[in-house]
Amino acid sequence: MNLKAAPVRLSTTSADFEAEFKARLHWSAEADAAIEQVVADILADVQRRGDEAVLDYTRRFDRLEVDGMPALELTAAELRAAFESLPAQQRDALETAARRVRTYHEAQKKASGESWSYRDADGTLLGQKVTPLDRVGIYVPGGKAAYPSSVLMNAVPAHVAGVGEIIMVVPTPGGEKNPLVLAAAHVAGVTRAFTIGGAQAVAALAYGTRTIPKVDKITGPGNAYVASAKKRVFGTVGIDMIAGPSEILVLADGSTPPDWVAMDLFSQAEHDELAQSILLCPDAAYIERVQQEIDRLLPSMPRAEIIAASLNGRGALIQTRSMEEACEISNRIAPEHLEVSSSEPHRWEPLLRHAGAIFLGAFTSESLGDYCAGPNHVLPTSGTARFSSPLGVYDFQKRSSLIEVSEEGAQALGHVASVLAHGEGLQAHARAAEMRLRSPKP
Amino acid sequence: MNLKAAPVRLSTTSADFEAEFKARLHWSAEADAAIEQVVADILADVQRRGDEAVLDYTRRFDRLEVDGMPALELTAAELRAAFESLPAQQRDALETAARRVRTYHEAQKKASGESWSYRDADGTLLGQKVTPLDRVGIYVPGGKAAYPSSVLMNAVPAHVAGVGEIIMVVPTPGGEKNPLVLAAAHVAGVTRAFTIGGAQAVAALAYGTRTIPKVDKITGPGNAYVASAKKRVFGTVGIDMIAGPSEILVLADGSTPPDWVAMDLFSQAEHDELAQSILLCPDAAYIERVQQEIDRLLPSMPRAEIIAASLNGRGALIQTRSMEEACEISNRIAPEHLEVSSSEPHRWEPLLRHAGAIFLGAFTSESLGDYCAGPNHVLPTSGTARFSSPLGVYDFQKRSSLIEVSEEGAQALGHVASVLAHGEGLQAHARAAEMRLRSPKP
Repeated sequence: MNLKAAPVRLSTTSADFEAEFKARLHWSAEADAAIEQVVADILADVQRRGDEAVLDYTRRFDRLEVDGMPALELTAAELRAAFESLPAQQRDALETAARRVRTYHEAQKKASGESWSYRDADGTLLGQKVTPLDRVGIYVPGGKAAYPSSVLMNAVPAHVAGVGEIIMVVPTPGGEKNPLVLAAAHVAGVTRAFTIGGAQAVAALAYGTRTIPKVDKITGPGNAYVASAKKRVFGTVGIDMIAGPSEILVLADGSTPPDWVAMDLFSQAEHDELAQSILLCPDAAYIERVQQEIDRLLPSMPRAEIIAASLNGRGALIQTRSMEEACEISNRIAPEHLEVSSSEPHRWEPLLRHAGAIFLGAFTSESLGDYCAGPNHVLPTSGTARFSSPLGVYDFQKRSSLIEVSEEGAQALGHVASVLAHGEGLQAHARAAEMRLRSPKP
Repeated sequence: MNLKAAPVRLSTTSADFEAEFKARLHWSAEADAAIEQVVADILADVQRRGDEAVLDYTRRFDRLEVDGMPALELTAAELRAAFESLPAQQRDALETAARRVRTYHEAQKKASGESWSYRDADGTLLGQKVTPLDRVGIYVPGGKAAYPSSVLMNAVPAHVAGVGEIIMVVPTPGGEKNPLVLAAAHVAGVTRAFTIGGAQAVAALAYGTRTIPKVDKITGPGNAYVASAKKRVFGTVGIDMIAGPSEILVLADGSTPPDWVAMDLFSQAEHDELAQSILLCPDAAYIERVQQEIDRLLPSMPRAEIIAASLNGRGALIQTRSMEEACEISNRIAPEHLEVSSSEPHRWEPLLRHAGAIFLGAFTSESLGDYCAGPNHVLPTSGTARFSSPLGVYDFQKRSSLIEVSEEGAQALGHVASVLAHGEGLQAHARAAEMRLRSPKP
């Protein structure tokens, strides 16, 4: 094997930088019309035929010949058995990761997910009541990208939020179950689990069938069919973000061992050919050393072919004029994962406005965050960090405004509401306010 | 005019209650295929032709014969002039409402929208940084449903969040501008405003044109074309919820003057024929008195025809066995607006899990909340309060996880990450963690 991984080399001082940069960044989430049609048909069919349709598609797409829906449910005992069958080291790692993820999300709930209220001078009470969702569905991909860590990252925040029932779906093509995924479901406190996937699983969760309970929200990553299905059922149920290929951006000032940076770029590239790894650094010599480490380390990587395809197709090593400029470019990219591989990460962090997760300092490899540091690894991709956030406790809660207007308050507010309502031509609104006045309008 | 408004009378003790209740509740948000196709074409056209396409559609749909995009921009001076031209009473009402909405949303930001972090025993820093969106678009409906209060409710939370630029779009069919809407944009601190609407305005904001700046998120209600366009551009930009018809649910224990309740039901029904007003009450005699007040008050209402159509088509007066049962039914409906018209509202509030806004006590008419109590009036409709929240400061912020693993922390976490990464077959992830260990694996 004579594999070579050579991410494109760009420099911000080059005349054609803008064009090359934009070309490299471009990734289109545009829907594929053929996929859209297939998904629309599957959704309609599951809505109409329920369990029967789910069974048909599961037979067809996952080659699962079962005689009824009960055979597609994973029992609590089965999940526990999967956990108990693991080597001690894996059991401990799963439990440690779950504990750390739980602690972080408990802090998150405390910081931003509690009910609040206040009374104004008129005695009017205003606030918000924060409550958990009743029932959520978490989608866990099967096959080659079956990640037990994703089970933790979806189920633990739901649990911390106080969600009553967590329904997991995970396809098991050909009947192959991933014991780590089942074990993670046990550790994370999943309520019920079904071995279904694809658009049919999304439909079953969104509409409910005789066997699959209808949920209030569906979270978790999936392939293009799953993404299209989630987008279509949005409104009937809540959904989290639509995930694109994973990305890492490393901002380096040259102080981190270059083999660490090379491996961090690999750790993103190994996900799939469309994953994107970018290095931004003002130091040309350091960039060269990272490339040398890429060359040295690549042959030893079991997933070398995927890594090479990703780095050659979508990777970039970009020399910037300064770290400040690197921060600006990072803001334009709004990366999912942003490593500030610098000896002074807190100097640059305030300049970084858009990113899913920011990893500060050389010791904070993205992979520590992916598995067990505590924060969620479900993060906004493809620049959506400009407007969206990591999956969190807040995704499994909703808010209700609380308003209690005192008799006194109704006097002050009534006149304002009356004027504005008349201005909008909504006279019943105005009169409802006026009726509460002690001296009603003539 | 011999108009009659007779909401259907149901009782939970009746044998066919479930069937009648479900039939009454049913409202389908299913997409209309014809609208979907029109919208898809408009989006593609605006993406391709930019300003030219926006001009064409504005000419066609809004009958605005202008010679270029500049004529479609409302200047800051024009917004200010609109404000200054208003009667003092309307100016004061707008400013009072804006001030109260601002105070409430500032409290909301403080309670749930600030950055936070902590360090664990190993010195690892974990937290979230909360930052405002750079630029948002707010859609304000034109024509018969042009509501200045909606301008405040969208723009003020964006402003409080710290959004850099707030771009307002509002169609002005036939060139008719609503001075209250323009004045509200002035009061709320809108950055730029354009007289465009429909799917073409959503497309212009989502993709950007030479004249219309591309935004990060689009909020605000609109008709079926706007809703479909927002759903389609979701992912390219963020969107708020997709709004259905407005609804009110009144839980009454019989202690509120029945004409107040009748008018509160009217205040929802007057929005449009599809709006829904429901009364839940254990007291049959009180329900009868509310119906009498409906009969007495209806003829005096300027929008009596719309009110009657809404109440006859979608309204309901439901007798329950108890207030407890009324609360259960309310949770099934998950109403947008929920009035607890009771002498002991705090007895029932803890039982109410799903609602956009909860109005406590007889003096808290929905209309006070709609205009000026402070909380947002953009609320989840059609049962989506089961999983979504009022528009708020949080809709104009996003979060980035912060992780700084200390050298000590990397030792503890590295082993866990390595075990889990190997379990997932992601060796580069494992090695990135292992490289940070002081005693690397053999």
